[in-house]
Amino acid sequence: MNWIWYPGDFEIYHGMLQNFQREERGYGWPAYWKMDDWRKNVCFSRDYELERDSRFVVHAQGVGYVAVDGRKYSFERDITCPAGKHKIEIYVGNMAALPCACVEGDVIHSTPEWMADDFRECRAVGYSPLYTEAEPNPNQIPWRYVPCKPVSKREVNGGVLFDFGRMINGSLKIITGDKAQTVTVAYGESEAEALDLKWCYYKEENTVDGMWLRKRAFRYVYIPEGSTETMDCEAVHEEFPLEVRASFHCDDALLNRIWDISVETFRLCSGLFFIDGIKRDRWIWSGDAYQSYFVNQYLFFDEEINKRTIRALRGNTEITQHLNTIVDYSMLWVIGLENHYWMTGDADFLAEMYPKLEAMMALLMKQTNELGFIYGRERDWIYIDWAEMDKDGVLCAEQILLWKCCRVMDDCGKVLGKPDAGWADKAAMLKANILHYFWNEEKQAFIDTYESGRNNVTRHANIFAILFGLVEADKTEAILDHVLLNDAIPAITTPYFKFFELDMWGKLGRLDIIWEALHTYWGGMVEKGAVTFWEQYDPTCTGKEHYAMYGDPFGKSLCHAWSASPIYLIGRYFLGVKPLEPGYTRYDVAPHVEFFKELHCVVPIRNGSVRIDKENGRVNIQASRE
Amino acid sequence: MNWIWYPGDFEIYHGMLQNFQREERGYGWPAYWKMDDWRKNVCFSRDYELERDSRFVVHAQGVGYVAVDGRKYSFERDITCPAGKHKIEIYVGNMAALPCACVEGDVIHSTPEWMADDFRECRAVGYSPLYTEAEPNPNQIPWRYVPCKPVSKREVNGGVLFDFGRMINGSLKIITGDKAQTVTVAYGESEAEALDLKWCYYKEENTVDGMWLRKRAFRYVYIPEGSTETMDCEAVHEEFPLEVRASFHCDDALLNRIWDISVETFRLCSGLFFIDGIKRDRWIWSGDAYQSYFVNQYLFFDEEINKRTIRALRGNTEITQHLNTIVDYSMLWVIGLENHYWMTGDADFLAEMYPKLEAMMALLMKQTNELGFIYGRERDWIYIDWAEMDKDGVLCAEQILLWKCCRVMDDCGKVLGKPDAGWADKAAMLKANILHYFWNEEKQAFIDTYESGRNNVTRHANIFAILFGLVEADKTEAILDHVLLNDAIPAITTPYFKFFELDMWGKLGRLDIIWEALHTYWGGMVEKGAVTFWEQYDPTCTGKEHYAMYGDPFGKSLCHAWSASPIYLIGRYFLGVKPLEPGYTRYDVAPHVEFFKELHCVVPIRNGSVRIDKENGRVNIQASRE
Repeated sequence: MNWIWYPGDFEIYHGMLQNFQREERGYGWPAYWKMDDWRKNVCFSRDYELERDSRFVVHAQGVGYVAVDGRKYSFERDITCPAGKHKIEIYVGNMAALPCACVEGDVIHSTPEWMADDFRECRAVGYSPLYTEAEPNPNQIPWRYVPCKPVSKREVNGGVLFDFGRMINGSLKIITGDKAQTVTVAYGESEAEALDLKWCYYKEENTVDGMWLRKRAFRYVYIPEGSTETMDCEAVHEEFPLEVRASFHCDDALLNRIWDISVETFRLCSGLFFIDGIKRDRWIWSGDAYQSYFVNQYLFFDEEINKRTIRALRGNTEITQHLNTIVDYSMLWVIGLENHYWMTGDADFLAEMYPKLEAMMALLMKQTNELGFIYGRERDWIYIDWAEMDKDGVLCAEQILLWKCCRVMDDCGKVLGKPDAGWADKAAMLKANILHYFWNEEKQAFIDTYESGRNNVTRHANIFAILFGLVEADKTEAILDHVLLNDAIPAITTPYFKFFELDMWGKLGRLDIIWEALHTYWGGMVEKGAVTFWEQYDPTCTGKEHYAMYGDPFGKSLCHAWSASPIYLIGRYFLGVKPLEPGYTRYDVAPHVEFFKELHCVVPIRNGSVRIDKENGRVNIQASRE
Repeated sequence: MNWIWYPGDFEIYHGMLQNFQREERGYGWPAYWKMDDWRKNVCFSRDYELERDSRFVVHAQGVGYVAVDGRKYSFERDITCPAGKHKIEIYVGNMAALPCACVEGDVIHSTPEWMADDFRECRAVGYSPLYTEAEPNPNQIPWRYVPCKPVSKREVNGGVLFDFGRMINGSLKIITGDKAQTVTVAYGESEAEALDLKWCYYKEENTVDGMWLRKRAFRYVYIPEGSTETMDCEAVHEEFPLEVRASFHCDDALLNRIWDISVETFRLCSGLFFIDGIKRDRWIWSGDAYQSYFVNQYLFFDEEINKRTIRALRGNTEITQHLNTIVDYSMLWVIGLENHYWMTGDADFLAEMYPKLEAMMALLMKQTNELGFIYGRERDWIYIDWAEMDKDGVLCAEQILLWKCCRVMDDCGKVLGKPDAGWADKAAMLKANILHYFWNEEKQAFIDTYESGRNNVTRHANIFAILFGLVEADKTEAILDHVLLNDAIPAITTPYFKFFELDMWGKLGRLDIIWEALHTYWGGMVEKGAVTFWEQYDPTCTGKEHYAMYGDPFGKSLCHAWSASPIYLIGRYFLGVKPLEPGYTRYDVAPHVEFFKELHCVVPIRNGSVRIDKENGRVNIQASRE
């Protein structure tokens, strides 16, 4: 039995809820882009041919009724359907939550075979392995609630500072021991933040004894009034049920610690969806999600969270605005979908998404010029990276993503047996124009844009060109010499783009560079006492400077999904596991054991795992599949 | 000060709430058509140039914040803005209700000049004269609550029957006098319905002493258990604040009673929107609403309820499905808009609706054939009337509505100074084809459809042809002789189409026919004890048969808006008041006083009223305007 809904609506509804969760200094901050709406009234139906009388009962979220051959019954009522042919329909309306239903019965019960009609189109229902019993229903998220107590408490500036020793994402209650007393509660991902009553992100005034406060992310709690003797607190952390299917242990203690902290970080940022960070923004960003798909593949190998995130980001078929308003994030959504297919071999999901892929490509192609180059429209954000770049014209980096999208469309069309829609031709034309207009012979590099005449070179387009396979060996060599190994070209500074850069180095076999980055960049955060990895790390900062970002002294998220990429980099490149065919029907295990004296690890693959051990110079690889 | 929202969203949100109110025998019955969604996150903004410091506070429904030149503040906080130029923005998200805001302050406060952005398009805000103070907010409907007591109580079949003496639309509470006792409550618009525990529409079991029950429509309440001595009840009727601006009193007592009952019926069916009936369906139907606009013009002359209903029916600009799924209802929406313009002269509202008019016409024109004739698509309902009709092909009645829509577009375009979009040409072409394909020379009448070859004649298309002015005097005469005054052609039986028929007779000056219909049809219901007018009346029925409809013994609504048309027929034709120019800048008062010995009445006009008195053979007409 499954709870059923109009396909895509579960993710649209919960995605919007998620994007409305942001909180900052006493006010709410709902996401500022157009969000698609879930349907408020739907009809579920299925025809049955019964050999004998059959009983069933319908549970639903919303108002409505069950109709058996047109005769109406209320929900929660025992209905007996006599032998013969029957049409069961369930009408549900819900304005404040997801309209959905489940049917319990021996023969008549809700399954993926049911149909959902939104009074425009009838389609196979949406469902999820999360909801296969009457409780919980799809308007409830099946969090695991983990009670947590602070690991330390001490007096600071006449108040009490609690340290939970780990990041918590959940609710908190203060025990003052005095029903009449109200206290101020300041939260912090860092100690410095909790102690800064003016600038901490979350602060709750007039808190009374025993009151549960709303879900927030924190490690430290500071109560400026009261004594360590009487004051106490406890928290309930909310953890999404996701199974960690990878493990990593080697002789390098720092690398082990980096792995563990990456796992902790990524678990915290993985709920119904991949969010960017737990303190800020708590939004579903397509660029961040793109990287999460890769990490997921090497940690949970959970296909469902990918699908939920992909659906939530995309919304309804009709599309007028780019994901999170960002043109490159729309394209990463397209490219991410192909990666999901390679990970899972799930052609059904690809088929479900195909009309949304087509509509997305139509939106993208509508804003291309006569050379096939994509440009930003009013209200579009051309992001690429937080980096100095010449954006005075159409951007090379965007064109490479568009070229890759055309390639994806061609590949997906072939998987689904669609007639040739000319995507390979479009890709070829675009590639020729990219090489003609953006490749600068003198600089032996791709320039940001040719329209400004400045011929500025940054690493971004050049990384994309190699990573997505636009260029062959000759130009790759040139780019390495003139850009990527050239210190005169500004380095990549954001962990967001560092993912693409390191992925590229991995593809080029330069594991030494990744190794170095892991130990210095992530190792640097470990040295600073990080228990989760930060949105950004700059080794030149000191003290509280580490917590500042976007002009805000505590603006930086200290638990950010895109900084969990060591999981992917280790699993994909050092342990060398990757699919050679979609869904790992063939796959490669080529670990670079030369980096390790000792190694004990497990890498998930589809429906199985690969165990890699090295001990006393002997390497052992064992694969198991269901 | 006004509460502000994204234009159209107030009506979309409350319209959906209304269309989810239907209840029948223990289950909910949300409307079965696609309903547009209101926006869940919006940004309101306005630029100010302040001469001195200015304080303001923002109230909002939802989560979000206020930004002054980008600096964020929470709602409900006193904000001081210094002299100079400033941009005020208010971001509000609300998934379960209407996101809206109001700004209180001397200089900075929310007005229709503010802009609303849904992150796709920035438009002037929506607002309503109903919401000009901090309370109530636009998620509350400003009902007037009228306490009501039953006028009689008597024992029937061992139980207690209460009669409130009038239709109530509100909540009920039973006073059993015994906290431990639970009772069953059966409701009825008629006594027979309340006493029928099996078939009554509304029944509440396990009701305890003093518990308020959900809003329902009823006159009678029956408690099968308990005695008249201990059992009591009371109700709170919910009345929407609408001012009756017309009055009618003449020497014909029956006509006076028909007027009064029509007023009672129409008041009950008028809330935020015009609904069809208070017991069933409680939905906003475009065809029913069309007739309500005409009645409103002669009773409340309330422009706002028209606008709210027009907006709620139409939803968002993009449109893929016909209103209530009915093609003719979409066209009546277009035609009703022109009538609203004639009533009000409100070109601003016409301009607001124009993009939605254009999108509606585009939808209609998309489903026309090479002759310009409109046909039904899959999922379209070609209604016209509950009547036997040859629907085996494109329908003449639909084409006449489409022709009228083209005329409306031409007229509206001229009012708004739009460039000629060819609507007059389309209308002319369509008219020529209608006359060529549907006019049957032999029958001297319009036939239902020419495609079936059956050449069937009903009154409907012929009534539309005269009413909407498709034909001139010659064909009008022919139609009268061969169809409308021809008893061999089946009579119109529904009050819905009777409105069009009588409106046509009024236009033709045949007030004698209207007079007769008022006295027999509506007079017949009066004779049967009606306190409100019924959805339908068949004088050949007896007893409980009067309450049956749609195959349900109590399926008939006994308080139905479309049966309140005597208000329009009397005001428009017998009292002869009508605009000669939009908004009554010129208007006609030509009462047919010959029908009355005595007459004391008031007919509203825009911003004024006309008083007509006849006494002792002397007629006095007085007009007053603000």
